[in-house]
Amino acid sequence: MTNTIEETVKNKIRNIENFPKPGILFRDITTAIKDKDTLPIIIDYLCDQFKDTKIDYIAGIESRGFIFGMPMAYKLHCGFVPVRKPNKLPAETISQEYELEYGTDKIEIHKDAFGQGDNVLIIDDLLATGGTAEAAANLVKKTGANLIGMGFLIELEDLKGRNKLQDCGKIVSMLKY
Amino acid sequence: MTNTIEETVKNKIRNIENFPKPGILFRDITTAIKDKDTLPIIIDYLCDQFKDTKIDYIAGIESRGFIFGMPMAYKLHCGFVPVRKPNKLPAETISQEYELEYGTDKIEIHKDAFGQGDNVLIIDDLLATGGTAEAAANLVKKTGANLIGMGFLIELEDLKGRNKLQDCGKIVSMLKY
Repeated sequence: MTNTIEETVKNKIRNIENFPKPGILFRDITTAIKDKDTLPIIIDYLCDQFKDTKIDYIAGIESRGFIFGMPMAYKLHCGFVPVRKPNKLPAETISQEYELEYGTDKIEIHKDAFGQGDNVLIIDDLLATGGTAEAAANLVKKTGANLIGMGFLIELEDLKGRNKLQDCGKIVSMLKY
Repeated sequence: MTNTIEETVKNKIRNIENFPKPGILFRDITTAIKDKDTLPIIIDYLCDQFKDTKIDYIAGIESRGFIFGMPMAYKLHCGFVPVRKPNKLPAETISQEYELEYGTDKIEIHKDAFGQGDNVLIIDDLLATGGTAEAAANLVKKTGANLIGMGFLIELEDLKGRNKLQDCGKIVSMLKY
């Protein structure tokens, strides 16, 4: 019996209990990307899901979205745009608040990151409650670009983050927990 | 007259005055990596500088080192290891302090990131005073791995960061200011 590629990658994810706080089971991706054979499996899988769509830009969400988004941009020959935490981007930005368990947080994008109607794919490592992903989607739409989809390495299905991502194009996650 | 590839890439770097504070001229790399033709020029240039050395891992320094390091790991078919700010890595870490203009900061790496004698290349976007780079080099050496070199997109030569990187293998920067 052979493993699927999803199982092969899942076997490289390390589970860490009680991080970042008690009661949370953290899915550690560092063990997957330090493995030279697993790293390209992940990148090639995610690229393949969007191979039939013209992509002008990949927008990666700080900071693990940079890890997966940049090699995809390299492979797909498109531009890369970072979605960052506040006060990190040097030129004029637009920002979007989103809710955390307690309080709010904010992400930003350069106002001139995309042109009108450019096709943008958002990449992050994890789809959990979907708060950050939804905020990133709103940012991309505010610029006037065309959001064609979102890709994640991991989706925590119980948290139903996908429900927040209506009208965001094709939503792909490689590993479901 | 044709431009060198270094000049081609320099033309895509945006200069922003007084960021992150008055008197600083910030070299904005986002305009270079959002250009689909400039992005691979940078990645291919940096990979080419190390093509004669066996590399087991690229260690990227948070967070712009992730941007350049991951596509290099993808292209060179090696593993990727993030060097992160404190309390971001979920498993057991070793850490290294370094000096800032005022006070100190700290970076961390997973204790089990590399094996003894593994060949490691450190990647970051910018070599300025060299404080972070030196700290990352010390971390890699503490793990027992073999530091074969360091690569940067930009080097601010006046700040003489390179002087801190004796005994760190081959030091490469694509753009010098």
